[in-house]
Amino acid sequence: MKKKGFFKDPMNLLEFSRFFPKKSGKTGKPPGTVQYLGKKRIEDVTINIATYDYLEYFEKTTKDVNEIKKYINKKKMLWINVNGVHKTEIIEKIGEIFKLHPLLLEDIANVDQRPKIEYYDDLIFVIFKIFSFNETKKTLTSEQISLIIGKNFVLSFQENDKDDFDIIRNRLKKSGNKIRKLGSDYLMYTLMDYIIDSYFIVLENIGEYIEQVEQDTIFNPSIKTQNEIYSLKRELILLRKSVWPLREVLSSLQRENNKLISKEILFFLRDIYDHTIQIIDTVETFRDMLSGMLDLYLSNVSNKMNEVMKILTVIATIFIPLTFIVGIYGMNFRYMPELEIWWFYPSLWGVMVGVALLMFFAFKKKGWV
Amino acid sequence: MKKKGFFKDPMNLLEFSRFFPKKSGKTGKPPGTVQYLGKKRIEDVTINIATYDYLEYFEKTTKDVNEIKKYINKKKMLWINVNGVHKTEIIEKIGEIFKLHPLLLEDIANVDQRPKIEYYDDLIFVIFKIFSFNETKKTLTSEQISLIIGKNFVLSFQENDKDDFDIIRNRLKKSGNKIRKLGSDYLMYTLMDYIIDSYFIVLENIGEYIEQVEQDTIFNPSIKTQNEIYSLKRELILLRKSVWPLREVLSSLQRENNKLISKEILFFLRDIYDHTIQIIDTVETFRDMLSGMLDLYLSNVSNKMNEVMKILTVIATIFIPLTFIVGIYGMNFRYMPELEIWWFYPSLWGVMVGVALLMFFAFKKKGWV
Amino acid sequence: MKKKGFFKDPMNLLEFSRFFPKKSGKTGKPPGTVQYLGKKRIEDVTINIATYDYLEYFEKTTKDVNEIKKYINKKKMLWINVNGVHKTEIIEKIGEIFKLHPLLLEDIANVDQRPKIEYYDDLIFVIFKIFSFNETKKTLTSEQISLIIGKNFVLSFQENDKDDFDIIRNRLKKSGNKIRKLGSDYLMYTLMDYIIDSYFIVLENIGEYIEQVEQDTIFNPSIKTQNEIYSLKRELILLRKSVWPLREVLSSLQRENNKLISKEILFFLRDIYDHTIQIIDTVETFRDMLSGMLDLYLSNVSNKMNEVMKILTVIATIFIPLTFIVGIYGMNFRYMPELEIWWFYPSLWGVMVGVALLMFFAFKKKGWV
Amino acid sequence: MKKKGFFKDPMNLLEFSRFFPKKSGKTGKPPGTVQYLGKKRIEDVTINIATYDYLEYFEKTTKDVNEIKKYINKKKMLWINVNGVHKTEIIEKIGEIFKLHPLLLEDIANVDQRPKIEYYDDLIFVIFKIFSFNETKKTLTSEQISLIIGKNFVLSFQENDKDDFDIIRNRLKKSGNKIRKLGSDYLMYTLMDYIIDSYFIVLENIGEYIEQVEQDTIFNPSIKTQNEIYSLKRELILLRKSVWPLREVLSSLQRENNKLISKEILFFLRDIYDHTIQIIDTVETFRDMLSGMLDLYLSNVSNKMNEVMKILTVIATIFIPLTFIVGIYGMNFRYMPELEIWWFYPSLWGVMVGVALLMFFAFKKKGWV
Amino acid sequence: MKKKGFFKDPMNLLEFSRFFPKKSGKTGKPPGTVQYLGKKRIEDVTINIATYDYLEYFEKTTKDVNEIKKYINKKKMLWINVNGVHKTEIIEKIGEIFKLHPLLLEDIANVDQRPKIEYYDDLIFVIFKIFSFNETKKTLTSEQISLIIGKNFVLSFQENDKDDFDIIRNRLKKSGNKIRKLGSDYLMYTLMDYIIDSYFIVLENIGEYIEQVEQDTIFNPSIKTQNEIYSLKRELILLRKSVWPLREVLSSLQRENNKLISKEILFFLRDIYDHTIQIIDTVETFRDMLSGMLDLYLSNVSNKMNEVMKILTVIATIFIPLTFIVGIYGMNFRYMPELEIWWFYPSLWGVMVGVALLMFFAFKKKGWV
Repeated sequence: MKKKGFFKDPMNLLEFSRFFPKKSGKTGKPPGTVQYLGKKRIEDVTINIATYDYLEYFEKTTKDVNEIKKYINKKKMLWINVNGVHKTEIIEKIGEIFKLHPLLLEDIANVDQRPKIEYYDDLIFVIFKIFSFNETKKTLTSEQISLIIGKNFVLSFQENDKDDFDIIRNRLKKSGNKIRKLGSDYLMYTLMDYIIDSYFIVLENIGEYIEQVEQDTIFNPSIKTQNEIYSLKRELILLRKSVWPLREVLSSLQRENNKLISKEILFFLRDIYDHTIQIIDTVETFRDMLSGMLDLYLSNVSNKMNEVMKILTVIATIFIPLTFIVGIYGMNFRYMPELEIWWFYPSLWGVMVGVALLMFFAFKKKGWV
Repeated sequence: MKKKGFFKDPMNLLEFSRFFPKKSGKTGKPPGTVQYLGKKRIEDVTINIATYDYLEYFEKTTKDVNEIKKYINKKKMLWINVNGVHKTEIIEKIGEIFKLHPLLLEDIANVDQRPKIEYYDDLIFVIFKIFSFNETKKTLTSEQISLIIGKNFVLSFQENDKDDFDIIRNRLKKSGNKIRKLGSDYLMYTLMDYIIDSYFIVLENIGEYIEQVEQDTIFNPSIKTQNEIYSLKRELILLRKSVWPLREVLSSLQRENNKLISKEILFFLRDIYDHTIQIIDTVETFRDMLSGMLDLYLSNVSNKMNEVMKILTVIATIFIPLTFIVGIYGMNFRYMPELEIWWFYPSLWGVMVGVALLMFFAFKKKGWV
Repeated sequence: MKKKGFFKDPMNLLEFSRFFPKKSGKTGKPPGTVQYLGKKRIEDVTINIATYDYLEYFEKTTKDVNEIKKYINKKKMLWINVNGVHKTEIIEKIGEIFKLHPLLLEDIANVDQRPKIEYYDDLIFVIFKIFSFNETKKTLTSEQISLIIGKNFVLSFQENDKDDFDIIRNRLKKSGNKIRKLGSDYLMYTLMDYIIDSYFIVLENIGEYIEQVEQDTIFNPSIKTQNEIYSLKRELILLRKSVWPLREVLSSLQRENNKLISKEILFFLRDIYDHTIQIIDTVETFRDMLSGMLDLYLSNVSNKMNEVMKILTVIATIFIPLTFIVGIYGMNFRYMPELEIWWFYPSLWGVMVGVALLMFFAFKKKGWV
Repeated sequence: MKKKGFFKDPMNLLEFSRFFPKKSGKTGKPPGTVQYLGKKRIEDVTINIATYDYLEYFEKTTKDVNEIKKYINKKKMLWINVNGVHKTEIIEKIGEIFKLHPLLLEDIANVDQRPKIEYYDDLIFVIFKIFSFNETKKTLTSEQISLIIGKNFVLSFQENDKDDFDIIRNRLKKSGNKIRKLGSDYLMYTLMDYIIDSYFIVLENIGEYIEQVEQDTIFNPSIKTQNEIYSLKRELILLRKSVWPLREVLSSLQRENNKLISKEILFFLRDIYDHTIQIIDTVETFRDMLSGMLDLYLSNVSNKMNEVMKILTVIATIFIPLTFIVGIYGMNFRYMPELEIWWFYPSLWGVMVGVALLMFFAFKKKGWV
Repeated sequence: MKKKGFFKDPMNLLEFSRFFPKKSGKTGKPPGTVQYLGKKRIEDVTINIATYDYLEYFEKTTKDVNEIKKYINKKKMLWINVNGVHKTEIIEKIGEIFKLHPLLLEDIANVDQRPKIEYYDDLIFVIFKIFSFNETKKTLTSEQISLIIGKNFVLSFQENDKDDFDIIRNRLKKSGNKIRKLGSDYLMYTLMDYIIDSYFIVLENIGEYIEQVEQDTIFNPSIKTQNEIYSLKRELILLRKSVWPLREVLSSLQRENNKLISKEILFFLRDIYDHTIQIIDTVETFRDMLSGMLDLYLSNVSNKMNEVMKILTVIATIFIPLTFIVGIYGMNFRYMPELEIWWFYPSLWGVMVGVALLMFFAFKKKGWV
């Protein structure tokens, strides 16, 4: 049997590996081994260093991790953003500079993590996922973002070299801004708010696609529709795996009475906590709707089959008896008196038309025609 | 393939956007930006100002937000009702007058919120949804209502210019009324009670429509029925998203020992808390029933197919063998002794009628005819 | 298309209104408005007054609510039982005599309540539902019972004029009975025990009906069976809505350290709490079984269709080729040598019988015949 | 329509009454009425009395309940085992001797109880179910076991006259045994351990039966298989109703700091608590597997139907056009030039064989043949 | 009916016994009886003894359990690893040496345990399962690992003679390693980390297999696919039963303030706790996806049936009327004027081709051809 080709481009099914963590390369290694486990990457890792207080702002992009040391200054806020975690020596070096726990470094490099929050003595460590929806392939791609918040510094690690935080750096540049007045907790909040807002865009994209698929399900159901529903369900499983833990992270941040989080920031955290609930709500709504759409699709397939059966039955039921009748007078018996009667043939036509009409109206009454 | 036109008016499917929040216009903006994200509106925003104590009642409708200041008076209750949140400068001005937190103002303008409650130092902030069921299009429309309760004032914001609270203002006008004796907490309760009562009307409307669809499912199942069930399920998903948080809001109001809520009002809040539970119960009951109706519909489709198959089988099974028999004596062999026997033709008729009757009774016994 | 008449008596589907509360007549009225919202009733409301202590018992039935005042006596237990809540003036009068909260009176008259318990300063207010199963129509009817327990009085309100509590009054009459020795809490327990026992009877009735439907599903599945399963599921949704809150009510009564409940009674309440759990268990079991029965029914429909298809296929597959063969020798070609051979016709019979037998045995092997 | 006889022995469906409590005989009776509600029984009730301490062991079987009094002795352990609860006067007599609460006696006689634990001042009262799986009828039978644990006595009541605890008495007889050294709590534990172990045997029996049904579902699906799956699901509903409460009972025994339970016994109770979790796990696993098996069965039915349809389609599609062709040359037109051509008949054979082969290979390519 | 042979090798279905505990051989035996209940094994049991401190490391493999005593030394860490639990006398001997509770020994030998943790006075006792996925038979095999952690010793018991912990012994050999510096808690953590990492490998194997089955479901659905989905669901039930308790075990280890666990180790335990959550997440994701795949498979079966029906209907609908037409002119009436007209036969051909084309285009428009 040849491939049915239900999907034009079967490529979007080959990314099944997004659904499970891949640690086989790591088993048996001692804990705390910093090892990159994601897709192979060869790009250079760039480091953005931003240091600021209410009066001044300074920014630099470098590839040399050792430059960081120069900017450590207890009086100013320091934000290090690292684009790329596939060069583990850079992560290890940063770990050394800021005295980070080896398990924390391991988690940064391992990009198959689930969103989570961990409290160390004088640090908060958060892992988030950021998603983008590929409009053509209709698949989600995720990127892992790790944040480390200390007394007067924030470290952020992104999986790829596309810098997501430019917009925030621009806001930082403008003096007199709230973000320049407040500490590392407000910078953390700003980054989180940005990350969580990005989910709304993904949800809008998916929502618009679901709308399209729903139209197809109702007006034009085909095998393509079925595969689209299946594929959407699959992507939502992926999304869902990342959004539920978001809620735990933010709820923990609010409850935990951490000294790094000032009271004023709690209001803002409550706000993004509400956003995560809204995101979860929407994901669950989408899942619910897709289930409904699958039911509708299957019901439509049944209805179509029913329609096909009815046509077959109407045709067969009308013509099979008529064919029998004409068969009778095709017999070659010598003694068939009807054959000799001149009005028998036209009358037979009358009978046959009558039978056909009778059946037709019977079917009409049953609503089959 | 042309559109099947399952719905007469496909318009009611175009409102899919009700199912997810649309924030893409906002991403990247700093938190606390007051921005309207709902449907485009051009109506003027009107402001109802009501100020009263046990002895006096005064009411005014204006379009000038600055008039509010004149009526602030610590000794009297003040109720400001704003019809329309699409002019954000009005919200910002009110925020300035009453010293409201910027995140709170942001939430008022963003009409894609989930119902929620927030406690500020000397304020309670509540967001509700009010629904109406369009009897023709069989769809729900929601409007967001925000309430801010302070020591001696209540602010209410409605999404559209249709004033929902006229009936309560009328009650306020009558002197000697309970509502005139008690403070802002009782006014808040009255507004909430009104909002929650409106759900019962929506539920009655939906209930009556479900009853109608149920009748169709049982006595007259068609593709229209299936689409109605699907569409009802869809609307209930929307409703459900808003009623579950209602319960949290009211349960929080009762538990939280807020100084703005006097003990006497707690009894009343318990009463509307009970109402929200009843609403949730009913929504869940409706969902349960619709699932049952879908099962019933599908079962009916199967039964119909079965019926169609039986008719086809009965007709085909009776006539196919007979057609074979008459086919035999239509053969042109020179040596077919039966053809010469004069009683063979009438006997054949006998045989054929016999076979047909036999089969008919066999099917009768199987219950197919 | 004409009505298929799946139900002989479609009346039992017209009671859909049992599934949602009907408050539309009430919206906009101030809270605390006592208004009857149930079925229209014209019967008179009768009031049973019973007053007793360990030594004496006195009972009276009246229609005049003012008579109650005469029997208020701090030293004796007083039990007022009101049959009918559609005359709200009676409820209001009683509320006045016993100084009841207006919201409580509102709840008594509104018979669409969910079972609940409320604690007032020196009162306990409980709402229950009592069910009866109509054996003919196979539907449930519910009646709302409200109980108010005070220091030395119990007030009970029944929705209709059928007095459910006769049996308890008879027990009261007998002196030396436990019920005469103990206070209002034991009377409350006795009434609750009676109400909850009535659920077991309803469950037995439904259980016996389910058994019957199960037999039909297995031995005699038809569209009637399907509708019975659907209708049973529907009734269980109704029942379930009332039994889950029962558990909350009784669990609250046990936990709450209310001064009206003496320690001795707690043992008895634990007993009826266990009963409610058993009731819930049984309702859930019934639901589970009905789901299983629906699956079984659908599977049987599939099996039947399969059987029909097999017969059609067997007949068609045997005769269609034979009809083709006889068709060949019905052709009128001048040069068909077979037609002239005398043994060809009998041999053809042999061939045809052979083909038919061969096919028959092939189907036999496949298990289709 | 005659009975289809899906089950050879329909008897095992008549025990539906196992699924709901039957209390109708009791409604309206005052609480504390000791009444037997199980199957009618006429056997005598026998009483095993065992009294022991570390040095001595004495055992007696009697039918006279008054003999118990002779063996009450504060210094020795006393174990009374009653086989049969249908003679309520015996239960009432024992209640009198040991001063048991009337509700407790009521629960012993009412064999439709759910497993539960209750703490009285100086007693623990436990109700368990013991199951046995009838290998022939494939149904479960349950028996209710009630245990009362006091300071130095244990009372056990069994529903039928089959003595389940012989094996434990034998262990008691042997001196130097742990059970002889320790108090009533260890005897209670031993009895519970015995009861819970009996569940594992039932699970093994059911497991082996499920394995058999699974084999049938895969290799030999028939209506019998479907009914077996349904019937197994039904029995598991029954089992499940009894095993979930077991867990609550044992968890409560561990948490509750009851003075009758010594600290040493807690270790043992944790052990049987683990067993109940394993039992629940297994029951849920079985349910999961049966759902999967039902899906598989239905999928197999669909596949079979598909196979049937394919054969019908292949045969009909090949022969219907051929029959049409031979029909053409059976027409009796005077002017049909083909009929006169000598090579037309053999060529027609060629054409027909060609068409048939073409179709056959088309179907082969589609994978239908 | 012969076996359909859906599975090439039906062997992988015979291991149903993995799904329930088998304790029937044990019922009635007193608690604390050490009895092996797993598969029959005849291999010798080997014992690895490792004793080390920061400076020295010594290792020995023996079959004589009495050798253990020689190495007990309060100053050094001792790790005993026992390969095989089927010789209960060895377990009992070790129990004697380390004074272990009899119930603990019973649990080690009973390899049908659920993962669990138990705290004894100066011991922690943990049971884990380790899985391996057989790539050929596509089934999971589990092995039970018991760990006992004392002040300065760790005992580990493996079910079979394949030594899983070689890799850790190699790490121990290297001096200067973290594992050599820290106590029994870190060794415990290392073993647990190793065990939990092994789950990721199993998940990768299963994930790759699911990917393959998904491809089949979409491009090449057959009965084999259905059986693979069923079989995968079955294996995931098994896996799930073991991974959920893992989480409880690790969460308990973190919460419980056990003196054997130093504060530093808690960070590491949190890390593997996160891993167990990820494992659970993945197992649940797999289950979700398999449900979706089953739906897709069934939908594909329906679609195929639909396609088959359409072909049958098209062929039958086109040819049945044509066959009727040719039947008419095969009749032998003497007075059929058409038969005599020379242009009637060719015109009939025209009519028939016309009818066929008309129908063909009607079907084309319906999208059936």
